[in-house]
Amino acid sequence: MTEEQLIQMALKVRQNAYVPYSEFMVGAALLGVSGEVYTGCNVECASLGATNCAERTAVFKAVSEGETKFKAIAVTGDPNKYTFPCGICRQVLVEFGRELKVIVAKTPDDYKVFTIEELIPHSFTPDDLGKNSPEEDQNGF
Amino acid sequence: MTEEQLIQMALKVRQNAYVPYSEFMVGAALLGVSGEVYTGCNVECASLGATNCAERTAVFKAVSEGETKFKAIAVTGDPNKYTFPCGICRQVLVEFGRELKVIVAKTPDDYKVFTIEELIPHSFTPDDLGKNSPEEDQNGF
Amino acid sequence: MTEEQLIQMALKVRQNAYVPYSEFMVGAALLGVSGEVYTGCNVECASLGATNCAERTAVFKAVSEGETKFKAIAVTGDPNKYTFPCGICRQVLVEFGRELKVIVAKTPDDYKVFTIEELIPHSFTPDDLGKNSPEEDQNGF
Amino acid sequence: MTEEQLIQMALKVRQNAYVPYSEFMVGAALLGVSGEVYTGCNVECASLGATNCAERTAVFKAVSEGETKFKAIAVTGDPNKYTFPCGICRQVLVEFGRELKVIVAKTPDDYKVFTIEELIPHSFTPDDLGKNSPEEDQNGF
Repeated sequence: MTEEQLIQMALKVRQNAYVPYSEFMVGAALLGVSGEVYTGCNVECASLGATNCAERTAVFKAVSEGETKFKAIAVTGDPNKYTFPCGICRQVLVEFGRELKVIVAKTPDDYKVFTIEELIPHSFTPDDLGKNSPEEDQNGF
Repeated sequence: MTEEQLIQMALKVRQNAYVPYSEFMVGAALLGVSGEVYTGCNVECASLGATNCAERTAVFKAVSEGETKFKAIAVTGDPNKYTFPCGICRQVLVEFGRELKVIVAKTPDDYKVFTIEELIPHSFTPDDLGKNSPEEDQNGF
Repeated sequence: MTEEQLIQMALKVRQNAYVPYSEFMVGAALLGVSGEVYTGCNVECASLGATNCAERTAVFKAVSEGETKFKAIAVTGDPNKYTFPCGICRQVLVEFGRELKVIVAKTPDDYKVFTIEELIPHSFTPDDLGKNSPEEDQNGF
Repeated sequence: MTEEQLIQMALKVRQNAYVPYSEFMVGAALLGVSGEVYTGCNVECASLGATNCAERTAVFKAVSEGETKFKAIAVTGDPNKYTFPCGICRQVLVEFGRELKVIVAKTPDDYKVFTIEELIPHSFTPDDLGKNSPEEDQNGF
């Protein structure tokens, strides 16, 4: 799975975004350590606070399918500008590990790569509540 | 697809719940008008406000796979007590239609059925913000 | 404190709504058992999921000032239409008691009254997680 | 208003935290450009996703009282460890400006200072949705 392929999957699922309020479509593709990819789009709600972003849709889908360790996520929003994950998504992503690679893409050829740790440094994590993150058992990649 | 079968699917995905903070596992199975079933579990987060419930996981998964019209959802939490959807999930469910059947189950043999309208009467809906719900185009079932 | 006075306070704080995304202003005024009133407006966020409604702003303000038992809340949104609390707000309101009076108002002279129990029947409550609601110790009013 | 004084106010309001689920108390004190201080604690909910953190309580309170430009916020959680704002709170704080000073404190004498920009670099902001942040009109302080 190359970064370009992951971005292509994010671009494809972005078409399913349900965004009657903002009309701002976002797609995400999350690569699990198993090799499986989980895709997500944003899903808005009339009560805006119940809105869910693309990145979290992908994470929730993955967890519900039994996977909790991830290698990389590609995010695609505005095709003319890098669309970064919001703070809520960064919080949910870092729950599952600090090493996750975040690929912020305009197109399959135009993207930037960060670690989730770079995007939410000094994060509030399971450890703050006396719990372990799923990554604790993770073997290095 | 019978109600019992949908509950069985909710019970199965409930095993994937990520609940280090509450240890309260919930599973949901959402039946789309296409006949497809989308399953979800709850996914908690150290920042508790970023937690997602089983019902919403199922909805977000469905929308990300292109389906926005639903017939029924089965919800299973505490096996000894009916676990009802929280207000956030009711809000997200009613976004997609007022007729949805909500099956609140202890076991495949012990359940109650409501409409989402009964669980969130006088709801705040897309119409309040001048939008149509996906159900508007829906033909009766 | 009359219902009309509580509505007037909700209408006043509504002017402070921060709503660059929806332009839908809402105000709320929450009456505590102490007699104190806590007002709130909606506060939106570019990441729509981080948006907070007027009713919850009022509750969070009250709790932060030491009050957790409430008699009534007035809600004012669209002046030409009754604006009901969303499911997230219903969930937060019912956390603190099932008897709360919810006053849904167009104007100080045109309003409807419900209990929170009517707006979120069969609610998921602290009891589901093995906790007591603050109302448990409450003496009748 | 010194940093120590702001931390003292955060420690005081922390006592009002409503945390039956995590038992993790947090307090925050937000200094507006007007010189007014708005305090907040965390307020949890049986539906964990409806939980609100201390920092957001302070912001929502401030906005509801008409203030949208801020200088600094002090955050106090675990007295033996620096408790950083979660991603949701970082997102809400950065909505109102990138220059905000975030004071993460164990005690009035033991604290670290960051800008919100440092805690949520490359943030998703009002600009991504074609809006201006309240800080745009802000004159330097």
